[in-house]
Amino acid sequence: MALLVRAHGFGISRNWPLVKGLRFTSSTISSKRTSSFTTRTTTIFALGSALVGGLLGFTLANRAQTSLPTLSPIPTGSPTKPKYGSPEDFGKAIEELKRTFTDEDIVSTDPEDVYNHGFSVNDYHPGISHSVVVYPSTTEDVVKIVKIATKYRMPITAYSGATSLEGQFRGYSTGGICIDMSQMNHILEINEADSDLVCQPGVGWVEINDTLRDKGIPLFFPIDPAPSATLGGMISNGCSGTNAVRYGTSKGEWFLNVTVVLPSGEVIKTRRRSRKSSAGFDTTKLFIGAEGTLGIITEVTIRLTPVLPTTVAVVHFPDVRQATEAVRDVMNKGVGIQCVELLDDVFMHAVNNFGQSGRTWPVKDTLFFKLQGHNAASLTDTAKVVKEVAEKYGGFGFQLAKNDKEADDLWHDRKNAHYSGLALVPGSRPIATDVCVPVSRLPDLVYETKKDLSTLGLVAPIVGHVGDGNFHAQIMFTNDAQLAVAKEAVERMVHRAIAMDGTCTGEHGVGIGKKKYLVEELGAGTVELMKMVKRTLDPLGLFNPGKLYPDDDENKTQ
Amino acid sequence: MALLVRAHGFGISRNWPLVKGLRFTSSTISSKRTSSFTTRTTTIFALGSALVGGLLGFTLANRAQTSLPTLSPIPTGSPTKPKYGSPEDFGKAIEELKRTFTDEDIVSTDPEDVYNHGFSVNDYHPGISHSVVVYPSTTEDVVKIVKIATKYRMPITAYSGATSLEGQFRGYSTGGICIDMSQMNHILEINEADSDLVCQPGVGWVEINDTLRDKGIPLFFPIDPAPSATLGGMISNGCSGTNAVRYGTSKGEWFLNVTVVLPSGEVIKTRRRSRKSSAGFDTTKLFIGAEGTLGIITEVTIRLTPVLPTTVAVVHFPDVRQATEAVRDVMNKGVGIQCVELLDDVFMHAVNNFGQSGRTWPVKDTLFFKLQGHNAASLTDTAKVVKEVAEKYGGFGFQLAKNDKEADDLWHDRKNAHYSGLALVPGSRPIATDVCVPVSRLPDLVYETKKDLSTLGLVAPIVGHVGDGNFHAQIMFTNDAQLAVAKEAVERMVHRAIAMDGTCTGEHGVGIGKKKYLVEELGAGTVELMKMVKRTLDPLGLFNPGKLYPDDDENKTQ
Repeated sequence: MALLVRAHGFGISRNWPLVKGLRFTSSTISSKRTSSFTTRTTTIFALGSALVGGLLGFTLANRAQTSLPTLSPIPTGSPTKPKYGSPEDFGKAIEELKRTFTDEDIVSTDPEDVYNHGFSVNDYHPGISHSVVVYPSTTEDVVKIVKIATKYRMPITAYSGATSLEGQFRGYSTGGICIDMSQMNHILEINEADSDLVCQPGVGWVEINDTLRDKGIPLFFPIDPAPSATLGGMISNGCSGTNAVRYGTSKGEWFLNVTVVLPSGEVIKTRRRSRKSSAGFDTTKLFIGAEGTLGIITEVTIRLTPVLPTTVAVVHFPDVRQATEAVRDVMNKGVGIQCVELLDDVFMHAVNNFGQSGRTWPVKDTLFFKLQGHNAASLTDTAKVVKEVAEKYGGFGFQLAKNDKEADDLWHDRKNAHYSGLALVPGSRPIATDVCVPVSRLPDLVYETKKDLSTLGLVAPIVGHVGDGNFHAQIMFTNDAQLAVAKEAVERMVHRAIAMDGTCTGEHGVGIGKKKYLVEELGAGTVELMKMVKRTLDPLGLFNPGKLYPDDDENKTQ
Repeated sequence: MALLVRAHGFGISRNWPLVKGLRFTSSTISSKRTSSFTTRTTTIFALGSALVGGLLGFTLANRAQTSLPTLSPIPTGSPTKPKYGSPEDFGKAIEELKRTFTDEDIVSTDPEDVYNHGFSVNDYHPGISHSVVVYPSTTEDVVKIVKIATKYRMPITAYSGATSLEGQFRGYSTGGICIDMSQMNHILEINEADSDLVCQPGVGWVEINDTLRDKGIPLFFPIDPAPSATLGGMISNGCSGTNAVRYGTSKGEWFLNVTVVLPSGEVIKTRRRSRKSSAGFDTTKLFIGAEGTLGIITEVTIRLTPVLPTTVAVVHFPDVRQATEAVRDVMNKGVGIQCVELLDDVFMHAVNNFGQSGRTWPVKDTLFFKLQGHNAASLTDTAKVVKEVAEKYGGFGFQLAKNDKEADDLWHDRKNAHYSGLALVPGSRPIATDVCVPVSRLPDLVYETKKDLSTLGLVAPIVGHVGDGNFHAQIMFTNDAQLAVAKEAVERMVHRAIAMDGTCTGEHGVGIGKKKYLVEELGAGTVELMKMVKRTLDPLGLFNPGKLYPDDDENKTQ
């Protein structure tokens, strides 16, 4: 479960013990396959319907041929499940994959391999094995796999970092093909003069930033979800992280273009490399947050931004409301804030209790600021503004790092929060929430959530990306009964967030876990529009069935 | 033609003489209709095919019913034109519109009105009248219009600011309905605590920022195309402006959600109001740059950002390459640059020649910087960095405004560039280019373009949003022969830009003028994907036929 933390930017190093533990559990498998178990963000897909594609088609045809039709409603969602191949068909598909990729490491039906690719310690959805795992190296390999999947009507799910939290890379009940992107992990171009970079989907953002640093290129990629997240999954999950308050999210302009294998087997590149273009709607955006349901990403061009000096400041508040108002006021000053993270009083107690911090913190709602500026003077200036504003809202105990070492130490307490929280309840596991609301509603939502959870007797420290109105409650449980109670609390929290004009997921995505909320959040018409796009691109419904799109009975829940 | 300038952020005030002139030409028309002539950006739509929707549908159906199909290619583009209603059908539609909207001002068939809504002094595409102009006030009005258009198979094109440059709001050859958004011009909500605002599509960004300033709210909306651009058209054109180097474009995260009337007549709201959401792919993005071909936007929620102190600095360079390199270096310093605009030597000569500037400038390639900071000290600090970097690249004659008045004066010379340019060639009209390339390629493209144009004996000063690799050559012509030569030069420039991994349009959109380049730029597969989305949402092809999507013979041009 510790990996869970990786999916919302707690920023742990890549090599902490549990990853080694995980490696150990899969030590019987070839190193190539093992590499696919290291925690990265997954690249993912979803449900459509062949028959519905057909029905939709007939509808359009009829509308086309009636000379003056009355208005047709948008065709409704899938009335039937897609028709997948039989177990025999899938057997033939696997044989054809093995004939197509003769290197023994490329096509795996190893039971542990196919199970581990359909299971995650990051969430509490049941693991579902794929039938086969394939490790492509090129876009052409992916095209071959998609064509075989299409020929035998076999569901197909991509996989890379595997840090996603909502079951996005689970197998499908009929079985299917899992495409592991761990071999497509190369940086292809670094265009320093254009501040952009071209890479394959299996490359991690941390790896990109390490590479740039090692080459002495003063640029970085600022979208920072789980440290092991890879680009393909980051795009597919519509991710963000602690830098979002300064740099925005994956839904902004950081992905200049993607190369995608469509369900038809056709390869497209969505755009060229210029920073701006008004050449129609940007099809890149169709694949950001689509959880891979519309295509498999095989190459990406990202925009980079300058590395700037940073430091860390910490300040405590009487309550979350004053902390949130201070954040809004500071952001409106226009000073350099790269991150602003809230740890509530419970988390601060946990940090003290954990004993790894060099400090004993006041047990108060606390803001951790990462300040950025072009030089030391501008950082000092920014810190002055932050201190003044914080104190205006009752902030106290302001601390500014005196040097880089102290900055790292201060930020470490923020990064360590997850483990500190776990230590509060020995033997517990965490379940993370991910609601996001308009910033002014954040305090209300936090208070209602805390009240709800405390009446249940659940320990649930809260960490918030308060600048964006997004927070995560880390609900600890020690048994199935508590997990069930926690899941009900999460459900109430989601309904509260949507009622506040917010979302069920700020950055973790939909997968299996959140799709039942989509109609309530977006409305049946918007969800149906998403399904129409899905059916048009993937009429056979082969790409990651069961993820993202609500089942048709869930369409009626609003 | 002076309005042309409004579409690429030259930032002229809203009340300059030609607008009055325009008003005069339409003085016979009710003030309500006249208001629709004041220059705003248009909201717009495009071509699809009912029969193709059908053919696509049958294809999907067949694929669905074959148990193990071989791979089908993506269905190809429209083999036939959509079937529109007859003149008699259109007559019935107009009668029904008049029965539906009884206020005499709402439905207009005034010949001047229907012509002026299908014509623009901003471009050189032939004017094409609509059959009727309707002035809705609500989303429900728009639904009624769309249902009548659908019933009688009548093309439908929305119109608001009318500053677009590529014929985006032209009528269609069969005639059709023009929806003028000038009555849907209300700001509905200002959520200062959330830094967002909700408004109708006919509201201008300048109006929004004036309103916020007048209310003492220290926030603004930073996307700054033509001063008269309105939100609906800004979204539909995928616009940007001089602030893009700091704040990005309309394709970023400034539009939190849109309310849209789909071709089906269904109304959807794409998202809720939280700043972040990972609830699937963001359908808001489908409508940004779609030139209205997928729906009519009737409400918008935008994100706002703090107003910061600014000042202006000007510095000259030996050539465009050194100026461009200086810009990249300055941007990498992480100091506060809100705008950085290049005027080439020809433009600087024009500014001197125009005589409105208080200065006589060196006739050299020159950068105009708008600096931003949270206080005077940070502005001074930023200016120091800019001066140092500029001089490293041969920059000279650095001038920093001593006060706000001087800052306005300096920036005025940048804003006045267009008229200064026109004055170089008495009696001339301008045609603007809009290519955008990776920043490092900008100097090559500028040099090749200058060489090309000078051999043609055409005067063409250049203004560049150099931070983004986007520039506009203002090619002056005095007769049709010169216009024809200029158009050929633009064509060569576009091919050069695409060959440099750039785009035919950085911010002006596609409309009628650029659609022939889309396959070359995006590839046939990406263009076909766009057409598939179009056919799925608008199977009858009623929304703004003839715009954005290449005709099928143009699909084969790559």
